[in-house]
Amino acid sequence: MGGLTQKNVVENENNGSNMAETMLRLVPMALCVVALVIMLKDSQTNNFGSLSYSDLGTFRYLVHANGICAAYSLLSAIISALPRPTTLPRAWTFFLLDQVLTYIILAAGAASTEVVYLGYKGDTAVTWSETCGSFGGFCRKATASVSITFIVSLCYVGISLLSSYRLFSKYDAPVVGHYNNKGGVEISTY
Amino acid sequence: MGGLTQKNVVENENNGSNMAETMLRLVPMALCVVALVIMLKDSQTNNFGSLSYSDLGTFRYLVHANGICAAYSLLSAIISALPRPTTLPRAWTFFLLDQVLTYIILAAGAASTEVVYLGYKGDTAVTWSETCGSFGGFCRKATASVSITFIVSLCYVGISLLSSYRLFSKYDAPVVGHYNNKGGVEISTY
Repeated sequence: MGGLTQKNVVENENNGSNMAETMLRLVPMALCVVALVIMLKDSQTNNFGSLSYSDLGTFRYLVHANGICAAYSLLSAIISALPRPTTLPRAWTFFLLDQVLTYIILAAGAASTEVVYLGYKGDTAVTWSETCGSFGGFCRKATASVSITFIVSLCYVGISLLSSYRLFSKYDAPVVGHYNNKGGVEISTY
Repeated sequence: MGGLTQKNVVENENNGSNMAETMLRLVPMALCVVALVIMLKDSQTNNFGSLSYSDLGTFRYLVHANGICAAYSLLSAIISALPRPTTLPRAWTFFLLDQVLTYIILAAGAASTEVVYLGYKGDTAVTWSETCGSFGGFCRKATASVSITFIVSLCYVGISLLSSYRLFSKYDAPVVGHYNNKGGVEISTY
């Protein structure tokens, strides 16, 4: 195989890897937008009164988290699609922001799940009523939005793994030399 | 420097790194136990009635999450203190379990924060009352337990970074060869 062919193979493999990462970042972007729109349109008015997502602080936080996540996903997808080498500062930036986004979106999902749970079950000890008995449509939409947010969290767990692999595989392995019982030095290699 | 001296330096550095990791794992263990005990003892009885942590599903989840986290932290601290080389299966196990624990404890903290927030602020739209007006002592203890859980989350974010560094630095860097505009091949090295 000639030198040029070898280089083309490397180039193609790298483009394929970039393409996969771009897709992995576009999927949560789409899901975030869907979760955002479902939650924004979530309001119900009936004989018991009126209830909107903006009445609950957690759902407002969920909307913001999904908005930030959608914007970041789009931006990072565009950057990862650019055919440029992965520099160390870029790997660090992606790694740190991916981690932060994962924690933000997971926290939003967990807190919102708690509110949806309280809405369905209520809590007699602290006199919180089962809101979903009166506002079933509201709760179903909220559940859908929260479920999609959890899928986004899973995507971001995957993205975090990928970006930590990209970052840390640039560094050398930590020293793992040891004396074993027989007094020799044992080096782990794989 | 002779070969034996060099080996001793390697050995000492490695022991220091293991010691640091063991300490990093013992700190969240202690914090988990504190958060667990505070929450377990959190109950209040007054003229308005009686309220215990076990009346709220989220706080029960928080107690379980803290218990699991304390047990895992202790076990992993013991294993990381053993003077054995970090093998690839061990690095993978630590990495995956550390990630799972980080997400579990962060989700417990986020959901519990939401309940504490609702306890203090209430929500008039869904007729949830401000429980903390009547059960101030209960809410203060719950807040303390949740705050400590967040510090545990921060510790676990650090532990996750460490274990992902340990794992992925064992792998080679992904291929980053590219044609630049001048037709040559550009390889990023740092």
